[in-house]
Amino acid sequence: MRRSGQIPFEPTPDPAWRLDAVGDDALRESSRQSRFAISNGFLGVRGECHPSHGDPFGTASRTLVAGLFDTGEGSDAVPTLIPAPDWLQLRLTFGGSVLLRQPEYEGSFHSLDIKRGLLLRSCRFSTNGAVVHVRALRLVSARRRSVGLQTLRLVVEKGEGEIGIEAVAGSPDPALILDDQDPDLSLWRTHRSRKQLAMTEAISVRVDGVSPGLEARSRPGLWTAHVAQGQDVEFMRLVSFHVGEREDGSPGPAASADLEAANGVGWTGVLKEHEAAWTGRWAASEVRIEGDPEAQRALRFAAFHLNGAANPEDERVSIAARGLTGTDYAGHVFWDMEIFLLPFYALTWPEAARALLMYRFHTLDGARAKAKRMGWSGALYAWESADTGAEVTPAHAVGPDRRVVDILSGTQEQHISADVAYAVWLYWVVTGDAEFMRDAGIEILLETARFWASRATLEDDGRRHIRGVIGPDEYHDGVDDNAFTNVMARWNIERGRDAADMMRTRWPEAWDDLATRLGVDASEIEGWAEIAATIASGLDDATGLYEQFEGYGDLEAIDLEAYAGRSVPMDVVLGRERTRRSQVIKQADVVALLALLPEAFPVGADAVNFDHYAPRCSHGSSLSTAMHGLAAARLGRSEMALDYFRRTAAIDLGETTAALAGGVHMAALGGLWMTAVLGFVGLSFREDGIGLRPQLPATWTALRTPLQWQGRTLMIEVDPGKRCVHVHVETGEAMAVHVGVARHWLETGQTLRIELGDPAIAEPAFDPSSSTAGHRL
Amino acid sequence: MRRSGQIPFEPTPDPAWRLDAVGDDALRESSRQSRFAISNGFLGVRGECHPSHGDPFGTASRTLVAGLFDTGEGSDAVPTLIPAPDWLQLRLTFGGSVLLRQPEYEGSFHSLDIKRGLLLRSCRFSTNGAVVHVRALRLVSARRRSVGLQTLRLVVEKGEGEIGIEAVAGSPDPALILDDQDPDLSLWRTHRSRKQLAMTEAISVRVDGVSPGLEARSRPGLWTAHVAQGQDVEFMRLVSFHVGEREDGSPGPAASADLEAANGVGWTGVLKEHEAAWTGRWAASEVRIEGDPEAQRALRFAAFHLNGAANPEDERVSIAARGLTGTDYAGHVFWDMEIFLLPFYALTWPEAARALLMYRFHTLDGARAKAKRMGWSGALYAWESADTGAEVTPAHAVGPDRRVVDILSGTQEQHISADVAYAVWLYWVVTGDAEFMRDAGIEILLETARFWASRATLEDDGRRHIRGVIGPDEYHDGVDDNAFTNVMARWNIERGRDAADMMRTRWPEAWDDLATRLGVDASEIEGWAEIAATIASGLDDATGLYEQFEGYGDLEAIDLEAYAGRSVPMDVVLGRERTRRSQVIKQADVVALLALLPEAFPVGADAVNFDHYAPRCSHGSSLSTAMHGLAAARLGRSEMALDYFRRTAAIDLGETTAALAGGVHMAALGGLWMTAVLGFVGLSFREDGIGLRPQLPATWTALRTPLQWQGRTLMIEVDPGKRCVHVHVETGEAMAVHVGVARHWLETGQTLRIELGDPAIAEPAFDPSSSTAGHRL
Repeated sequence: MRRSGQIPFEPTPDPAWRLDAVGDDALRESSRQSRFAISNGFLGVRGECHPSHGDPFGTASRTLVAGLFDTGEGSDAVPTLIPAPDWLQLRLTFGGSVLLRQPEYEGSFHSLDIKRGLLLRSCRFSTNGAVVHVRALRLVSARRRSVGLQTLRLVVEKGEGEIGIEAVAGSPDPALILDDQDPDLSLWRTHRSRKQLAMTEAISVRVDGVSPGLEARSRPGLWTAHVAQGQDVEFMRLVSFHVGEREDGSPGPAASADLEAANGVGWTGVLKEHEAAWTGRWAASEVRIEGDPEAQRALRFAAFHLNGAANPEDERVSIAARGLTGTDYAGHVFWDMEIFLLPFYALTWPEAARALLMYRFHTLDGARAKAKRMGWSGALYAWESADTGAEVTPAHAVGPDRRVVDILSGTQEQHISADVAYAVWLYWVVTGDAEFMRDAGIEILLETARFWASRATLEDDGRRHIRGVIGPDEYHDGVDDNAFTNVMARWNIERGRDAADMMRTRWPEAWDDLATRLGVDASEIEGWAEIAATIASGLDDATGLYEQFEGYGDLEAIDLEAYAGRSVPMDVVLGRERTRRSQVIKQADVVALLALLPEAFPVGADAVNFDHYAPRCSHGSSLSTAMHGLAAARLGRSEMALDYFRRTAAIDLGETTAALAGGVHMAALGGLWMTAVLGFVGLSFREDGIGLRPQLPATWTALRTPLQWQGRTLMIEVDPGKRCVHVHVETGEAMAVHVGVARHWLETGQTLRIELGDPAIAEPAFDPSSSTAGHRL
Repeated sequence: MRRSGQIPFEPTPDPAWRLDAVGDDALRESSRQSRFAISNGFLGVRGECHPSHGDPFGTASRTLVAGLFDTGEGSDAVPTLIPAPDWLQLRLTFGGSVLLRQPEYEGSFHSLDIKRGLLLRSCRFSTNGAVVHVRALRLVSARRRSVGLQTLRLVVEKGEGEIGIEAVAGSPDPALILDDQDPDLSLWRTHRSRKQLAMTEAISVRVDGVSPGLEARSRPGLWTAHVAQGQDVEFMRLVSFHVGEREDGSPGPAASADLEAANGVGWTGVLKEHEAAWTGRWAASEVRIEGDPEAQRALRFAAFHLNGAANPEDERVSIAARGLTGTDYAGHVFWDMEIFLLPFYALTWPEAARALLMYRFHTLDGARAKAKRMGWSGALYAWESADTGAEVTPAHAVGPDRRVVDILSGTQEQHISADVAYAVWLYWVVTGDAEFMRDAGIEILLETARFWASRATLEDDGRRHIRGVIGPDEYHDGVDDNAFTNVMARWNIERGRDAADMMRTRWPEAWDDLATRLGVDASEIEGWAEIAATIASGLDDATGLYEQFEGYGDLEAIDLEAYAGRSVPMDVVLGRERTRRSQVIKQADVVALLALLPEAFPVGADAVNFDHYAPRCSHGSSLSTAMHGLAAARLGRSEMALDYFRRTAAIDLGETTAALAGGVHMAALGGLWMTAVLGFVGLSFREDGIGLRPQLPATWTALRTPLQWQGRTLMIEVDPGKRCVHVHVETGEAMAVHVGVARHWLETGQTLRIELGDPAIAEPAFDPSSSTAGHRL
């Protein structure tokens, strides 16, 4: 192993590739921990900055491991992500003084190096006339997901004395029971979920590059040495975690093997591989913006957490509402994943997207069981899903006003099934991954379609109704014919028919097997056409307006402008009951439908619906502004969309809040990317290629983004100053690019320059006699 | 030690003397922990009910020790009450199964026995066909404050098997560093505050009353025995904690001595003494109400926590905002103590009141230092006070909306000095404790008067102004001439003059010493008369209305009725800035002045002010409704006052909230008692006796309360059905009782029956020509 230079500890110079924090800020510490978290889809480590009160080891970091769920005591308990033992604890002493606890240390400096996927720290301590400069680097490997690395370099800048480094593992969470421990390997099991966690670690210390430079002393894990001015001490700790089901045997050997392999390449080797993996992710997913450094950083920050959240190697886990950056929502998976995150993965990292959809395939049995239990057919996915796919939404929660409230989403928020189907179809349209469709996707589409076919009930008016649901707007429960739910359900049934057609045509034998297994026959699928055609949608043909749900229009109108100063959600301001009886919307609902299925809106009615619902929306969820931004961008209202974009970015990057304690908001981060690429670039999908309708905000002088489409690697550059867009196919076959009404043909390796029309694209007025557009997605 | 019968584990039968909880309720658990806390002014133990997730010992209780402060890292850190190691941890097994962790256990039942000062628990476990009934009793001794007792009784009702009891101490808080440990005694020190904590414990176990019935086994603290149906096992643990300053030597010997003494009387002896002490407290402080069981229980619950919070033996601690029932506000002492709690103690437990005021005397140097640092004379008490009296208000906090907000109270909320003076004077008026006045009270009155004399600045208008303060209404900072502050300051200066007169007259020598020490002379005190006379008060002579502060009337008027559904404070609804620019009041301000100094209001102007300010008050503090209740009761608006009383009771007893996590609201509990005794009974104080003006709500058919007044023990009974009040002097000299305009003379041992006048007492109309009443307090 070569002696390390200084470079690994220096953050990437470009400030738009970094997030810095100087000094301590106890009150914002929990937000920093979330924002500075690093993760690789298997391990997530929160970025603690502030020495915690009285902790002899200075900090209290927290490592989360994907899939490590356990359920507590009590009838209300639901599976919860259990933190792993803290492998980062460290106590540094110099001349007998504990360094990290010195209140007078200078210039504590933390930097999240977004480009390289590292958390870096630099700190200079003065103690009894001596000065020690400590730099630290931390990563969870993007190349070897089970592996974490912690490296410190201490340089004595002035004075001399005995330096001590004590490395211990923190107390495990009480939910973990120690099964076995030897010096190299610890093995825990969870109380109830029959999971096992293995942890192995290797530590090395050097003085001036010579190993062993410090001697192990009285206690295990403690090294000391006398060091003089100019000398440096390097500490390196590698760790490997593995999780397994108890019946599958110990995960210990796999953890040991991974650790050994990592140790073999050395810490600089682990660092290099990791940086190379991040370089690859950025090549595939970096959206570059000219003219708006804040937006540029926000998009990088978003892509950093999106790239860190996924693991293409594991089909048994998905991405929680807060990823692996915090424990809010207990590590549960919501529709956030399919609606707000999947587009990013499908278009930049299809392998990750596939694994994430396979999680829904593997949890189909849980969804079928939920549908059956509630008296319907097919598959009704869990509103909150953990390791098995069983419904794990808690029955109660403590609201923002600290009152206990009932949570009805677990039974009523059923659009989740259509959301999963939507993501499957989107993935298919974007990737053309036929194997996935044959082996998994079609089954999901059929089973969700089947659920809706049983769920929509024919009534005396000749229409089918879906009563007693919660739409995306969770302020209104038990509503009938929520437009979002019903239109998505109709769409889901139609895609179920398409899926059956596709399979019958392309893989007739596989179809026979599947149809037999599911007990589905031609007549059942035939019947879906009539069901889809008769589902009530709430669309008023005269105005082009969807009614959010039956009777919504009769509710009390509230002027949200009058409540502009509020700093809490509107249901807290008005009280739950009054909110329920008002038109105040929690989050994009009809607007979300507009963002997902614009073709479900008559020509020109998109603006009608947006203008009706946007002023009624109180954005009481972190999922709301992004959907409005996407819809506004598509409407050509670029400045309004930019405002929504900024509000979405502020959810995780705004400096005033301390509200990130539980982790970053993955859906908002995915939504930022969607606003940029699906919104401002105006990306859409056709049979023969892609469509573009770029409408950048005025300050964005250029935007450049790579994309994956149907096995091709594309680079798209929008240059509104020169009024043109460049499209380049780096790999893959020739394809079409549609801009406006023109269809351009693009050969592999070629860069196509397409002139844009008038920037002021007029919104078409709604004409009730016009037919709705027919394109999908 | 006699074998215990079954009785100790049975709660007091009368449900109005108990608080029960059946089963687990994870979401309300933190509130239960506060509500079911037991304390004795030195030790407080939260009443955990729910087995915590994964905890092998089933529960996570928390013991707080008065005065055990430590300060964390970081420049923002303030002293914080550090929990003691959990001495209650216990693991019970039967036939190898952990009992408290069984999800299927039946009928978990907790009862806070208010009468006896106990927390009781009963639980029946079924495991492998066997049934074990576990009952537990817990107390912190009201007789020996350093001592806690935990007793369990396990009866095998069915089956047989090996029973295991493992008793350990929980991990200490990271702020505690273990200094010394032997089997009988553990000694910790705090990181920074140089405090020491000693803990000693004694455990005994018996089977069928025979000791030793279980044998210590492989691990220390583990006992096992084979027990059959009908057998019982009794576990007893006594603990003693002592706290000391490091320079005062180890607190270990004192803890050991207390433990030995307690062990000497045995656990049933400790229980008996404790029950006897509570019987004494109830004889002195039980307010009995006929006709309203809910109010009865609320008042008992209030007096339970009030009696549990004080320690007459320790002059170095006071009562925190949440007592010893939780860690909100870090164990800091606010004006809550002097304004909301002191009346209860002065009138039912003068020894406790004296010790609590002595805490302010001992922290005078901190108050003098704060005044000096800010450029004034005399003593400006800390808005938040911990062990030394230094100002410990944090500079920032996270608001209810999770945003970081500045806290200005530490510099601007200066009425605290007048509040302390008010409490000193009230104590003097109620107790006539001349020794306290001579040795401590007068110095507090002089130094606070002196502060105000320097604080109120003469301006060109010939008036003295107090600018840049926060009144009780904390929604408005940096205000000028807050009526509450100014009128209390004026009153404080006047009492400073009275105090100097008293001392010069009664203790001329002591006066000379004090005057020399404080550097105060006759001319300084003489000057106070003119200063008091010229302080601006904001009283409008034409209307009788105080302006809450200069310019308040010009602020935006907000109709609070329109926000009736809200479940968060108004500053969160409107935003901080808009609230600041509005007339919305956080908590009783002019109304608080009315409750404290009714004589500062012109005749008839009390109703004018109440009617003006009550509709503007949003009750954004737990201190607000009680002051309104007291003022409304004094105005004869008994039903309105009862409504405020109920809202105050609901702060800690309401079933819907989960907002008690940080402890019960001591000020609200004190305020409940004040509303009943000072409000509904209409108690006031004269030179020769007391005044009564009973105006009970219609449902309260009788009220009976004991009182201490000037060395006498009184019993007052209001019987509105028979339209009379009975007053009885149990001990002490003859005295006067004023009811209406009549003065009655009451001999020792005599019961006086006084007929009441017309129940409908008309509120006098405000007459600007009338002079203000002159009685004090």
